[in-house]
Amino acid sequence: MKPRAGILITGTEVLTGIIADRNGPWLSERLRDVGVDVAVIEIVGDRPDDLLLALSHMRDDGLAVIVTSGGLGPTADDLTAEIVGHFSGREMMLDDRLEQRIGEILAPMVRRWPGLDLDAIKASNRKQAVIPEGATVLDPVGTAPGLVVPPGSGSGPTVVVLPGPPRELQPMWELAAATEAFKTASAGAPSYRRGIMRLFGIPESEIANTLRAAEEDGLALSELEITTCLRRGEIEISTMFEPPAAPAYDAFAAFVRARHSDTLFSEDGSTVDEQVASLLAGKTIAVAESCTGGLMSARLTDRAGSSAFFAGGIVAYSNEAKVSLVGVDPALIERVGAVSTEVAEALADGAVQRFHADVGVGITGIAGPDGGTEEKPVGLVCFSVASAAGEHITRALRLPGGRADVRDRSTTVAMHMVRRLLRGQAGQPVRGPGGDTVAEALKR
Amino acid sequence: MKPRAGILITGTEVLTGIIADRNGPWLSERLRDVGVDVAVIEIVGDRPDDLLLALSHMRDDGLAVIVTSGGLGPTADDLTAEIVGHFSGREMMLDDRLEQRIGEILAPMVRRWPGLDLDAIKASNRKQAVIPEGATVLDPVGTAPGLVVPPGSGSGPTVVVLPGPPRELQPMWELAAATEAFKTASAGAPSYRRGIMRLFGIPESEIANTLRAAEEDGLALSELEITTCLRRGEIEISTMFEPPAAPAYDAFAAFVRARHSDTLFSEDGSTVDEQVASLLAGKTIAVAESCTGGLMSARLTDRAGSSAFFAGGIVAYSNEAKVSLVGVDPALIERVGAVSTEVAEALADGAVQRFHADVGVGITGIAGPDGGTEEKPVGLVCFSVASAAGEHITRALRLPGGRADVRDRSTTVAMHMVRRLLRGQAGQPVRGPGGDTVAEALKR
Repeated sequence: MKPRAGILITGTEVLTGIIADRNGPWLSERLRDVGVDVAVIEIVGDRPDDLLLALSHMRDDGLAVIVTSGGLGPTADDLTAEIVGHFSGREMMLDDRLEQRIGEILAPMVRRWPGLDLDAIKASNRKQAVIPEGATVLDPVGTAPGLVVPPGSGSGPTVVVLPGPPRELQPMWELAAATEAFKTASAGAPSYRRGIMRLFGIPESEIANTLRAAEEDGLALSELEITTCLRRGEIEISTMFEPPAAPAYDAFAAFVRARHSDTLFSEDGSTVDEQVASLLAGKTIAVAESCTGGLMSARLTDRAGSSAFFAGGIVAYSNEAKVSLVGVDPALIERVGAVSTEVAEALADGAVQRFHADVGVGITGIAGPDGGTEEKPVGLVCFSVASAAGEHITRALRLPGGRADVRDRSTTVAMHMVRRLLRGQAGQPVRGPGGDTVAEALKR
Repeated sequence: MKPRAGILITGTEVLTGIIADRNGPWLSERLRDVGVDVAVIEIVGDRPDDLLLALSHMRDDGLAVIVTSGGLGPTADDLTAEIVGHFSGREMMLDDRLEQRIGEILAPMVRRWPGLDLDAIKASNRKQAVIPEGATVLDPVGTAPGLVVPPGSGSGPTVVVLPGPPRELQPMWELAAATEAFKTASAGAPSYRRGIMRLFGIPESEIANTLRAAEEDGLALSELEITTCLRRGEIEISTMFEPPAAPAYDAFAAFVRARHSDTLFSEDGSTVDEQVASLLAGKTIAVAESCTGGLMSARLTDRAGSSAFFAGGIVAYSNEAKVSLVGVDPALIERVGAVSTEVAEALADGAVQRFHADVGVGITGIAGPDGGTEEKPVGLVCFSVASAAGEHITRALRLPGGRADVRDRSTTVAMHMVRRLLRGQAGQPVRGPGGDTVAEALKR
C-alpha cells in the first residue's frame, strides 16, 4: 500500500490567522516529490489536547508519516517535542551533545544583545535539548533542533518534527528526508511524475469542457490525477501520474495543446515570469506604472539576477509625475484622461526613452475602491508594451475583484503582453476576455 | 460549554500547494469575532473519503460548528454539498428557485463568451442547485450558493458550506453568520475581546522575558490568552480575554508599556502602515529605491486613498538610473559605492526633489543571493528618510533571510523610519539590532 502522510501545523498565531501558514503547502509539495501522498493538512493551536487529538486522528486514519511544524521554540507554549514523545510512547531525555550545540548557536546572539537574561537563555537552551529517546536529531538551522521520531511500539506513524520559521524548516526538511527513519516509514512510495500546463486568457469552465471532451474521445484520464485551478489570473492544469501512465499524459497534453494553442503558454512548468526573464536575455526592460504602484517593477525584480535585464521603473501615481518624470504630454492627459490606452502607450514609450530600454511597460488604471466613474469604472486598467523599435501591444481590460486583486492581476496581464512582444507576436490579435480599447472593454 | 468550531478547507490544488489557502485564517478570525473558539483548520483534497473522515473527526471531537470552503463549483470533483448532506443525514434535492437564480447569474457570462457549450452550462447550473433538504441557502456572490446545514438527527455539528474564492466566501460568511441556523449552533459563545500590541526593534526572546517577569510580579496572566509572534520583522502580542478580565489585560498592557516604551509602537491594533498614512495627512511622500525594486512604493500604495499622500517613486536599479533619474552624484557612487548610507541619503533627497514631496525615502542594498562581497555582504541594506526641511534619519542594517525576506523586511524598516521622522523623532538614537553606519552594521 502506498504510504500516506499528514501535515500538522501548530501555533495559536497560525490558527487564529495572525500569521499565514506557508509550511503546509510547501511540505505537501515536498512529500509528493518523494512519492508520499498527503491526505490532510491540519492546523491546531498551542493546546496539548488538540495536538494529541490531531496526531491520534492521523494514526487512526492509517497515515504512515506525520510532519509537524512549530512549537519547538524556547517558550512554555512550545510543546511539540514533548507531546510527540508522549504520542509515540517514548521517554523524554536530555541530549547533552545537543544542549552544547544549541549553546554554541546562541553565543553570538548573546554577544549581540547585551543585557539579556543569561539564566533564562540557559533554561531555554536546555528545554530545547530534551527530546524523545530514540529520536534522530536534525541539526538546527536556527536554534531549534528537528526530530524524526519512529513509533515506540513498532507500529504507528513516524513523526518528523520541524521548527515553524520557513527558512529553518525548509533546509531541515532535506535533512529529515535523508534519515533512515524517514526512509523506512515512507518505503513503498511510488515515484510520481508531475506535468503542468499553464494557460492565460480563457475561463476555467472551458477547461472543464476540454476534460469532458477528452473523456468522450476515449483518453485514459483515469490513470491521471488532474487538478485545474485559477492562479493569479492564469489557469494551471497540474497532473500527477505514475511512470507507466506517461503515454496517457502525453495524449492528454496533445489534446489540450490542439484545443488551446492560442492560450497555452507553458508545458514545462515554467512561469510567465521565468519565460519573460529568458526572453529578455541581452535586452533591458523598464516600467512606468500608475495604479499598480510599483508592483510591476517589484515583480520583474522578484527573481535573482534581474539586474541583468531590469533597467528601472517609475511609479507615476500623479499626473504631474507622468508628465515631468515620464514625459507624457499634458495635453494628451487633458484630452483623453490619465486612464486611457493613449496614456498607457505614452507611459510605455516614456519608460523606453527615460531608461534607454529595449522594452517599456505602461500601466494606468483605477484599482479602487474609490475613483471610479460611470465612464471609467473601478477595475478598468489600460496596458501598453512598447519596443524601442516602435512596436506596441496595447489593450484595455476591466478586471474583477478588489483593489489588491486588480493590482496583482494587472501585473499578470502585463507580463503576458511583454511575453507576446518579445516573441514577436505584436501583430497577432489578442484573444480572451479583453478588447483593445477602453470602449470595447466597457462593453463586456 | 463554549461552542468550538472546525474549519475544513477542501481542494486538491490547496492540499498539494498549488494555491495558498487564505480562507482558513480569515474564517478563524471571523469565528473568534463572534465568540466561537476555533479548534482546528483542516485541509483535504477533493476525495470523498478524506472529506468524510475530516467531518467525522470534528464531530467526534465535539465541535458545534464546521465551516467548509471550496468544492461548490460546477465540475465533477466539486463534491462538498453532497458529502455534507450525507454526513448530516439529509437527502439531496433540486431547489428550483435556486436553479433559476444561478441561471440568471450565468446569463451575462454566456453572452460574454460566445461559443460556450450551453448544455454543459445547464448541467453545471443544475448540479449547483442540488442541496441537502432543510438547508438554509446563502445567495451566491459568484455562481455558487452557500449552505447552512443543521444536523439531520438533532445532534452533531451544524455545517456552514461556503465557496472557495475568497471574494465570494467573505461576503457570504456575513450572510451565514446572520442565519438562525448558525446562531442556534453557536449559542452560548462568550463575547471575546482582543488586545493587540506591536513592537519593532527587539528580539522575540525579550518578550518571553517580559511575560515571565509579569508572572513573577503577580499579574493575572492566566485570565488572558496571550500569543506572541514575529510578523514581517515586527513582534505582535495578541491577547484574547473575556470582558471580566479587562483589568488583567490593562495591567498587562501597562507592564509591557513600561518595559518597552521605546519599541512599542501600537496598542490599538493599528499597523505601521496605517500610522504612516495618518501621519502623512496633508503631506506627500516619494520613494527612490533600488534593492526593494518597487516594493516600497507598492506598500505605500497598498491602501485605498494613498493617492492623497503618495507623490510617486523611482525604481533606480542601475547606477545610471540613480544618476539620471534621481540626481545622485556619480562621483559619490564612485567614491563610496551604490550600497552606502551616503547614496541612501542622496536617493532620499532626490525623491524629495524630483517629486516635490515633503518626505523622501531612499533604499539601496544587496538583496542577494548574488552580488555580495566580503565588504558588503548579501543582506546589507542602507536606508535614509529625508524631509524637505533637510532632516534625515539614516541607517545601515544587515538583514537575515533570503532575497524575498530581505526585500520585504526592508520595507518594514523603512516604514518605521518614516514613522519616526513624521513624529518628529529624527534626533533620537535608534535602538534595536542596527547601527547607523555600514561599518557598525557589519560589526554585528
